[in-house]
Amino acid sequence: MKKIGIIGATGVVGQEMINCLYDRNFPMSELRLFASARSAGKKVSTPKGELTIEEFSVEEAKKSDIVLMAVSGSFAKEYAPQITEGDAIVIDNSSAFRMDNDKPLVVPEVNAKDLKNAKIIANPNCTTAILAVALYPIYKEFGLKKTIVSTYQATSGAGYEAMMELENETRNYLEGKEVSCDKFPSPIPFNLIPRIDIMTDNNYSKEEMKVVNETRKIFHNSELQISCTAVRIPTFRAHAESVTIETERPINPEKVRDILKNAKGVEVIDDPKNWQFPMPLTASKKYNVEIGRIRQNIIFNEYGLDFFVCGDQLLKGAALNAVQIAENIV
Amino acid sequence: MKKIGIIGATGVVGQEMINCLYDRNFPMSELRLFASARSAGKKVSTPKGELTIEEFSVEEAKKSDIVLMAVSGSFAKEYAPQITEGDAIVIDNSSAFRMDNDKPLVVPEVNAKDLKNAKIIANPNCTTAILAVALYPIYKEFGLKKTIVSTYQATSGAGYEAMMELENETRNYLEGKEVSCDKFPSPIPFNLIPRIDIMTDNNYSKEEMKVVNETRKIFHNSELQISCTAVRIPTFRAHAESVTIETERPINPEKVRDILKNAKGVEVIDDPKNWQFPMPLTASKKYNVEIGRIRQNIIFNEYGLDFFVCGDQLLKGAALNAVQIAENIV
Repeated sequence: MKKIGIIGATGVVGQEMINCLYDRNFPMSELRLFASARSAGKKVSTPKGELTIEEFSVEEAKKSDIVLMAVSGSFAKEYAPQITEGDAIVIDNSSAFRMDNDKPLVVPEVNAKDLKNAKIIANPNCTTAILAVALYPIYKEFGLKKTIVSTYQATSGAGYEAMMELENETRNYLEGKEVSCDKFPSPIPFNLIPRIDIMTDNNYSKEEMKVVNETRKIFHNSELQISCTAVRIPTFRAHAESVTIETERPINPEKVRDILKNAKGVEVIDDPKNWQFPMPLTASKKYNVEIGRIRQNIIFNEYGLDFFVCGDQLLKGAALNAVQIAENIV
Repeated sequence: MKKIGIIGATGVVGQEMINCLYDRNFPMSELRLFASARSAGKKVSTPKGELTIEEFSVEEAKKSDIVLMAVSGSFAKEYAPQITEGDAIVIDNSSAFRMDNDKPLVVPEVNAKDLKNAKIIANPNCTTAILAVALYPIYKEFGLKKTIVSTYQATSGAGYEAMMELENETRNYLEGKEVSCDKFPSPIPFNLIPRIDIMTDNNYSKEEMKVVNETRKIFHNSELQISCTAVRIPTFRAHAESVTIETERPINPEKVRDILKNAKGVEVIDDPKNWQFPMPLTASKKYNVEIGRIRQNIIFNEYGLDFFVCGDQLLKGAALNAVQIAENIV
């Protein structure tokens, strides 16, 4: 039984962490919830009774065995090293430590063994985690020469207020009122925005390069040839991704479906004739990542495959993966 | 000055055809609007006064010089040959004649020369037309080895009632009412549907194979290596497409931007640092197709490019292209 702390417990990812811990019967002797002074004193109801948000301090957070952080990168960078000076282990959802050579970046279905005795463990970018859990079993069996990804990302990736902006501004749109934007650079209702995060020197966005660099690190293959186009669309909490791959060895959809049916963390939903495929509507609030539209790619032929994945951005893309890491530590 | 007829004038594409003809000052001596008996007698206001919808008959339609058809494939297949028995020319927006060897399939910026003396001319699939106008200048200059497309398609592609379903069911969602679907197989608000049209034998959808086969025909290259994933998203009337290409000859973004700045039918919007890129919000109701996010692809390097296009499905994807064909005939 472990003492667990969550920092950033009032955010949308923090709340899903609480849900996941209880829903999965995580062996906890204690759960403490930390946030900023502004939120301290607030009550949070859980299946085991009400909990009170505490103002974050390093001293108190250090008393937990495992600390889940759902905070900004700069906050994590400052405090995670201090929290882990004692025995506490930190699992951090920000991008602060993901590319640090001495810190593991973990999708448990792929590289749980990287956890070893790490004190600070990075939780991947949401789009990366959702892709990795579906792509890795294919990579292991067939090898990958090229991976080309286009994403359909939900507003939850930009936080609770972004989801509310989608909802409220859509209402304004339908009522004929002025549609504005604050969390997004352009109005998001009935629109899409083909840039997420800042731009990098090669004219890919940082979100796109996270998918590239983090997948390489998780797969232990710095030469993995992968590119991405990251697009925000007006959905709430599930990211979808259209993926085309060229493989090292011959591949076919039947084999892939067989392999994925036995893989952890994925659910094959692939009967397009009967309109069964991954969708935000069905993938939201689900632990498993949906995969479907699996077909032989008509350019790469027997060395090529197309597929479509959809996973809950707040769960596999964030809170669930962090809790799974904690489960693996225990 | 030509006598013009529109069949299917009450539909959403038919209405845009009327708008385009007047807006572009098409040299018309007469415009007649045909629809089913149900719509006959309805009045349509135009910049040149009110017009009355007539019930369609072959005899009356034959009296026009150019007939624009915005009807179903089966209707077009039955009546276009009869209408063109005399001097009338038909430009058909359905898929009925697109792959017929003896009938041209035309995007005027690409292959206007195919029009020759054809009596029935096919207007391409919306996604194809929007892609072709942006892709062709690149193809001509650099050659294409591979083209991989993922789409973000608006509800207008499924007709007016589908657009209304998005609007009405989104309202239901926001009011906490039950969200249902009729024109779509699943609720479309805050969702996406990764299948458009029926499925074909190779597990691509018919929409996806239209992009493949029609682009090949328009480019006069039956060996063009192109694949597509077609996805419906909750937007109203502009389709977006994420495109990755491998070229025959070295390519770079600066050259591409230069070429596209001088190309017809496209508008380069490519300043992602300042949040300037193609979006449904800006591409809707615009004749030109927006292209941006132009960057060197990190897999294919000097032989690779990524870009993002967005074009009005009802204009370049349908009505405008048909009217442009008519302009070329005149």
